[in-house]
Amino acid sequence: MEKEFKQILQNRRAINFFNPERDVPEQLLRELVEEATHSPSSFNLQPWNMLVLRDKEEKMRLQKLAMNQPKVSEAPVTLIILADTKAWHKENDALHIVLNHKLQDGELKEEQKDWFFGVCERLYGKSRDSELAFAVKNTAFFAMSLMYAATAKGLQTHPMDGFDHDGVKKEFNIPENYWVPLLMSVGYHADNAEILPVKKRKSYDELVLTFP
Amino acid sequence: MEKEFKQILQNRRAINFFNPERDVPEQLLRELVEEATHSPSSFNLQPWNMLVLRDKEEKMRLQKLAMNQPKVSEAPVTLIILADTKAWHKENDALHIVLNHKLQDGELKEEQKDWFFGVCERLYGKSRDSELAFAVKNTAFFAMSLMYAATAKGLQTHPMDGFDHDGVKKEFNIPENYWVPLLMSVGYHADNAEILPVKKRKSYDELVLTFP
Repeated sequence: MEKEFKQILQNRRAINFFNPERDVPEQLLRELVEEATHSPSSFNLQPWNMLVLRDKEEKMRLQKLAMNQPKVSEAPVTLIILADTKAWHKENDALHIVLNHKLQDGELKEEQKDWFFGVCERLYGKSRDSELAFAVKNTAFFAMSLMYAATAKGLQTHPMDGFDHDGVKKEFNIPENYWVPLLMSVGYHADNAEILPVKKRKSYDELVLTFP
Repeated sequence: MEKEFKQILQNRRAINFFNPERDVPEQLLRELVEEATHSPSSFNLQPWNMLVLRDKEEKMRLQKLAMNQPKVSEAPVTLIILADTKAWHKENDALHIVLNHKLQDGELKEEQKDWFFGVCERLYGKSRDSELAFAVKNTAFFAMSLMYAATAKGLQTHPMDGFDHDGVKKEFNIPENYWVPLLMSVGYHADNAEILPVKKRKSYDELVLTFP
């Protein structure tokens, strides 16, 4: 598996040119996404959601808010990835899906619910920073996995954060509790388009720090 | 590669029991980390850093701030993963590594530096939320890749966020500009220890939203 994962790492590139003629069928998108849900998350809270844009006009509305990057509408699918900053909160309806799983699995007992809410509140509800970091971190785990799942199946992706965050929230009626960490175009690489050379990365010695 | 990536997804588990006798040699850790640096990041800014804890006493200092979870010190290596909220800022020394790569590669010209700083400022310096989400998102891409790189080589990991965030920053002299999105223990699974069943995940239909 080691060799294959290295290959996936090398094959995964943030491509700029998608083949607009080659669709990503709904069933394939489902598979990719469901594979990506294997990602770990804090207390398995899975604070990830997304909007799936396929309609050309809808993608153009997004493109206008994303520095007019053509890939947003050229890719057959562009995802608006959402990080739910309140995914841990007892009054969030979305929590009940996860909570029911925990109760069904016997991981949590009915009488432990208040304790669980309390722990989440202390860890993730401590400050705006805490709830945002909680949501964005876990959602980025999911998004990274989705990129690899796509690459492993011969697709390509492009994660983007060059967009008007608040504009996108407003345009697509995204509720207050969500942060939009990235947009992700998904599709197949346009056959004749160039892929830019891999950019240099920081070395181990450059990224490992010590603070005496 | 599709089959192998599915296998990696399934093999990757947040394990609770590491074999304290089986080390992760420095060279192996380097390989894992350097593979993980292939992760994408905003403008290739790579706002990820980490502290590498191997010393038992040092790991115990961390464990005390992480709900006293034994794996923090039982794993041969526990990483304090750092997200640099100012990695885009022109006055951040760390930016110069990345900037030099861009200049060397011809991706950026000397006369475009101010333009580049301006774009980063508008995207990531817009608010506290923006700089934190920027740093945490990209660092989580790196961390997720590191977990898969480890799994692909037969190791295991455990990502944790059950710790006293500000306490850890203080104890390890971590400068103001960093957020600590997670700790990660890395090692080999203890042979005789149980691995818990996989927890249920939200389905595609549960996580895809529409906001009419």
